[in-house]
Amino acid sequence: MTLQQHWESGRAVLNGWLSVPAGFATELMARQGWDSLTVDMQHGLVDYSGLVPMLTAMAAADVIPMVRVPWFDPGIVMKSIDAGALGVICPMINSRQEAEAFVSCLRYAPRGRRSYGPIRAALVHGADYARRADDMVTGFAMIETRAALEAIDEIVSIPELDAVYIGPNDLALSLGEAPRFDPEASPVYDAILHILARAKHHGKRAAVHTGSPAYARKMVAAGFDLVTVGSDAAFIAQGAAAAVQAFRGG
Amino acid sequence: MTLQQHWESGRAVLNGWLSVPAGFATELMARQGWDSLTVDMQHGLVDYSGLVPMLTAMAAADVIPMVRVPWFDPGIVMKSIDAGALGVICPMINSRQEAEAFVSCLRYAPRGRRSYGPIRAALVHGADYARRADDMVTGFAMIETRAALEAIDEIVSIPELDAVYIGPNDLALSLGEAPRFDPEASPVYDAILHILARAKHHGKRAAVHTGSPAYARKMVAAGFDLVTVGSDAAFIAQGAAAAVQAFRGG
Amino acid sequence: MTLQQHWESGRAVLNGWLSVPAGFATELMARQGWDSLTVDMQHGLVDYSGLVPMLTAMAAADVIPMVRVPWFDPGIVMKSIDAGALGVICPMINSRQEAEAFVSCLRYAPRGRRSYGPIRAALVHGADYARRADDMVTGFAMIETRAALEAIDEIVSIPELDAVYIGPNDLALSLGEAPRFDPEASPVYDAILHILARAKHHGKRAAVHTGSPAYARKMVAAGFDLVTVGSDAAFIAQGAAAAVQAFRGG
Amino acid sequence: MTLQQHWESGRAVLNGWLSVPAGFATELMARQGWDSLTVDMQHGLVDYSGLVPMLTAMAAADVIPMVRVPWFDPGIVMKSIDAGALGVICPMINSRQEAEAFVSCLRYAPRGRRSYGPIRAALVHGADYARRADDMVTGFAMIETRAALEAIDEIVSIPELDAVYIGPNDLALSLGEAPRFDPEASPVYDAILHILARAKHHGKRAAVHTGSPAYARKMVAAGFDLVTVGSDAAFIAQGAAAAVQAFRGG
Amino acid sequence: MTLQQHWESGRAVLNGWLSVPAGFATELMARQGWDSLTVDMQHGLVDYSGLVPMLTAMAAADVIPMVRVPWFDPGIVMKSIDAGALGVICPMINSRQEAEAFVSCLRYAPRGRRSYGPIRAALVHGADYARRADDMVTGFAMIETRAALEAIDEIVSIPELDAVYIGPNDLALSLGEAPRFDPEASPVYDAILHILARAKHHGKRAAVHTGSPAYARKMVAAGFDLVTVGSDAAFIAQGAAAAVQAFRGG
Amino acid sequence: MTLQQHWESGRAVLNGWLSVPAGFATELMARQGWDSLTVDMQHGLVDYSGLVPMLTAMAAADVIPMVRVPWFDPGIVMKSIDAGALGVICPMINSRQEAEAFVSCLRYAPRGRRSYGPIRAALVHGADYARRADDMVTGFAMIETRAALEAIDEIVSIPELDAVYIGPNDLALSLGEAPRFDPEASPVYDAILHILARAKHHGKRAAVHTGSPAYARKMVAAGFDLVTVGSDAAFIAQGAAAAVQAFRGG
Repeated sequence: MTLQQHWESGRAVLNGWLSVPAGFATELMARQGWDSLTVDMQHGLVDYSGLVPMLTAMAAADVIPMVRVPWFDPGIVMKSIDAGALGVICPMINSRQEAEAFVSCLRYAPRGRRSYGPIRAALVHGADYARRADDMVTGFAMIETRAALEAIDEIVSIPELDAVYIGPNDLALSLGEAPRFDPEASPVYDAILHILARAKHHGKRAAVHTGSPAYARKMVAAGFDLVTVGSDAAFIAQGAAAAVQAFRGG
Repeated sequence: MTLQQHWESGRAVLNGWLSVPAGFATELMARQGWDSLTVDMQHGLVDYSGLVPMLTAMAAADVIPMVRVPWFDPGIVMKSIDAGALGVICPMINSRQEAEAFVSCLRYAPRGRRSYGPIRAALVHGADYARRADDMVTGFAMIETRAALEAIDEIVSIPELDAVYIGPNDLALSLGEAPRFDPEASPVYDAILHILARAKHHGKRAAVHTGSPAYARKMVAAGFDLVTVGSDAAFIAQGAAAAVQAFRGG
Repeated sequence: MTLQQHWESGRAVLNGWLSVPAGFATELMARQGWDSLTVDMQHGLVDYSGLVPMLTAMAAADVIPMVRVPWFDPGIVMKSIDAGALGVICPMINSRQEAEAFVSCLRYAPRGRRSYGPIRAALVHGADYARRADDMVTGFAMIETRAALEAIDEIVSIPELDAVYIGPNDLALSLGEAPRFDPEASPVYDAILHILARAKHHGKRAAVHTGSPAYARKMVAAGFDLVTVGSDAAFIAQGAAAAVQAFRGG
Repeated sequence: MTLQQHWESGRAVLNGWLSVPAGFATELMARQGWDSLTVDMQHGLVDYSGLVPMLTAMAAADVIPMVRVPWFDPGIVMKSIDAGALGVICPMINSRQEAEAFVSCLRYAPRGRRSYGPIRAALVHGADYARRADDMVTGFAMIETRAALEAIDEIVSIPELDAVYIGPNDLALSLGEAPRFDPEASPVYDAILHILARAKHHGKRAAVHTGSPAYARKMVAAGFDLVTVGSDAAFIAQGAAAAVQAFRGG
Repeated sequence: MTLQQHWESGRAVLNGWLSVPAGFATELMARQGWDSLTVDMQHGLVDYSGLVPMLTAMAAADVIPMVRVPWFDPGIVMKSIDAGALGVICPMINSRQEAEAFVSCLRYAPRGRRSYGPIRAALVHGADYARRADDMVTGFAMIETRAALEAIDEIVSIPELDAVYIGPNDLALSLGEAPRFDPEASPVYDAILHILARAKHHGKRAAVHTGSPAYARKMVAAGFDLVTVGSDAAFIAQGAAAAVQAFRGG
Repeated sequence: MTLQQHWESGRAVLNGWLSVPAGFATELMARQGWDSLTVDMQHGLVDYSGLVPMLTAMAAADVIPMVRVPWFDPGIVMKSIDAGALGVICPMINSRQEAEAFVSCLRYAPRGRRSYGPIRAALVHGADYARRADDMVTGFAMIETRAALEAIDEIVSIPELDAVYIGPNDLALSLGEAPRFDPEASPVYDAILHILARAKHHGKRAAVHTGSPAYARKMVAAGFDLVTVGSDAAFIAQGAAAAVQAFRGG
């Protein structure tokens, strides 16, 4: 299933986050009920050689495979989708020009400049992948700086752009606040709602990174199409800390 | 610090469990307050090539490195301690003969038959490791079958044996019960306390695998010297399931 | 699907062979129509750390995961099924005693001595895996020496043994012939049919390694329940050699 | 042997293609008679950590080591040749400026800007590698878009450029056709011959990716200096599909 | 400890170099008394997937973790510091613009554009890492071309730049000399001292790559703050060559 | 070249030792003039998955590939020679029975019980490998305990045994001395010469592990056929320690 097909059902996408480079960790995550999982190649401890077994691990479960690339670079964007990712989140898109450069990597000519060779994607997504790929892959431009905020309409009005993804931590830093998840009643919160509104105005999907299921539900209620909650790394650290504390006599 | 040194403080050892073959997962675990961590090479998704980066990840944190070997085999027992493990848990020790074969691998001649070459252990545990190794390494014979239960005094009376480790799931299967953690008021529970008593009678340490901090505390109160609670894999699966459920409208 | 479930359909199992330690090579194999794939940990360039990504790669395709262990050892047999293998082929089973030692590793107490902890198997084969595992896993004893031939009735009459697997190359060496696939009208051929007959007499499944689809069809017609044809390594070498020859002026 | 030395013999180079990140798969390929092998870091499932063992695998066989980088980036171009590649194919070179940026990475000052440190290359290609490297490494600019076609004379007239490499699939997409190998009597075919002619006019080598030995022979007859046929991934998929079909009774 | 903290002690940093992608090789290096170790992702056989276990190996020893990135790219610079590097050396900085682009990746807004997510760095460098990171990470711009030499004052006057790192081999090539370590009485030597003087004039730290402890001592006497001597790869090759020669009858 | 072929030249074999699991470290070693290199799977940080790239790295250099297995186990002995090792050193052979069990794994029926499937060995050692393998592979039984010393004639008189390999450290421990290399005028030294004499008496090759080229030369003069000097790990540690000391002002 693609993100577009999921959205056609009218439901928001619940996305999990992967920072641990181990296929088995991904398999553990992939069978817990997420709609999609994103391999974080930016801040996670994962590069391309770690990505492939994680995508393989996802293929056996009913979960949509996504990646966040480390930074905009046509090579890694195209390698990720050739490897089978159906969603690509690109960090730090700050202008229309950067957004256009990104989305052009997701579509074959004449719509873009993606190079032809969907070696694993065609294997796992069906014999007609090559023909349908332009519509199967969803690109998310991360909006997480003041510059991006100021250029928001220029960015979300790009026809080939599918969606925006809001990173609250970097957005907070850029707006002069401390980084934290799940902001409320603050300039960052206002910015998040503003980005959502502009994306919707231009008919684009909007996604946001959250720190709790409760905030994620609130963001879905506000109109977001995809919300990210939790990560394999956080579950390990939090679960272990809680167990140790419970034993120590907390 | 070794297990023996920890025990000299009078406190039980809180042990965490590692089944995910990723150094970063181990680093996340190693900094949450455990006294020791055990790489499970038996049921975990880990073999020797996965073990080494996990031991390396532990070396930077104040945690005692342990392994459970897949099955009794002198090669993997010795490779594990050469790689730096200070505790070795050996599954399915069912007789005095098997226990003696196991513990002989942990000590150099004349006390045992460990082959000389502590390549990483000497690097990370100090220049005098080779001289002190016989006393730095702790061996745990797993008592987890009816046969072992029947031979318990023959096993725990072996001079070079340091400790026993109780696996409640296999013990339950062997006694005709369903496998489950944290038994109460059952033949398995009685067996656990009996093993503990016989180990203590012969001056040996005793350890038990548990399914919760509360049960672990109870086992420490009962006299156990080491209790295992939780695992990286379980924390991922449980944390993810809880987040998904909370979002879905739990 | 398990091997037993497949066999209940009345069809023989077409098994492919994996010697290249790469998840992507396995994915390429897994989507070509095989009923099962076997990771060859004996002669293939694969050990446990290579096995896991290959099993993961199989999980996404409709193919039954199998392994051949390097040699009989309880540790690797149990690790393989904990990792999710549903079929285990064990080399060089030459006596009833060896066969019993092997099959006891495949079943939990009271039927056997498998240790409890089906960490990945339970994740990918369903929540009731632990309860049903004894019937989901199929063990194949390799019959490939004169000694095994002579003990064939003692071996195939073991209740917990599911199947035999014939290795024609080693059988030929043991009978004084040159190793080769697909023997005809020879002592090895006679031995193959004899093993098949004795297995069938005792109600066991029989499998054979072949060198061509044509011979495999013949063996199915003769009554074999599983036939192995080809391997990833052979396909690379043969495909490349043919292309080079065709170019060089074939 | 270098590509230049091979070409001095008057023979075209028969190149094989590698998409599977496994040293053993490369060893299987490297001993089948190819003149050169190319690790495809663009569409193959390979990144730098996968590349090195593949180059090592080639070193033992009489085959010229080449890479296709994922995209133009000085870092990966230089890392590839430091690791021992003697040929580098760079995708999507669409202008003289891009071609100059690429080839400058292949030569030390004063001819280019390659940074000094040929750590593995000097180990495997001889003590005088550093002195001779500028002439030992061959760079191929991929010509695979309409823009490149229009700039072909500006590109192939660059003194430091050694060769062009034609990607028929992307060229077809860029010219409005469906991607396919081995075009005949079409605008893509005309474009291929045009690129060949312009390269030859400027004294450059020309290479083309093909889908069959027969077409490759035809392209050599047309004047191409290097032709690529087949890949490890294709040989696995095609060999397996053929075996399954033959067995099924196709 | 950070580089800045070390320098506050008034002593120069003795830096070792890592080119072998193996955690154990790093552990061997990390316990020999170096102040810092640098993973060479440019000319070493290491990429990001190799880097992480090497940083982990350093964490257990009292050594400052550094990296040299392959080439300037915001993605790999930020990934390296998120993974825990406290020093980053960037090759081929030839202008003020390039230097500013580099150093902006090392600091969070408002001082720079580093994206927030110090996943492993915060784990190993303390809970207050995120708040203190801007001052904990040290960036070195490599000065190794004639262009950089000519722009030296424009580069070293950048406020956020911490240090320069001189690569004598590339500098020699760029100035028309043969690459060699430890130059004396030559234009390269004069250039090295000139760069040192200009860095010091602007209050910046200066580092240089050397080929011997003696030259390194001389450079420290000349005022350098960090000197690199030797590498894991060189120690293997030199040690082995010496042993073979001694045996052969040297 | 095989060990037997080398010995036919009348020269002793100079063997290097590998403990670092990295193909590049092996390549650095393999090009320094050793006659053979041994991957130490017993005390080195290497298992089978690490072994294969190291054997691949050796294949390109004129060096004989050897392994030391972790412990006697038919599976790993056969896997090592299938992977291409031409020499196998087996630790802790203490009786004729153990020696016979070991050497039977090295030869096909009727000489032994090696299972047929020389997948990589046949690829790299020539098309006639399978036919000639029994004579191409050399087995070394390690004599390193008092028990082995006492059974020396029973061991070295086994027809299929090719050679003995003396481990001075374990031999010293077993004889009640401290482990050290290069013993002189001691019971261990006497034992070494005695083992040599008995091996020669029975027409077997003899090998010894040494700590210096000088001692190795002495042992060759005494009649040893193979001497081991140095290791990749030792060269790193010693080279680094010497450089640091030289810098610190030693």
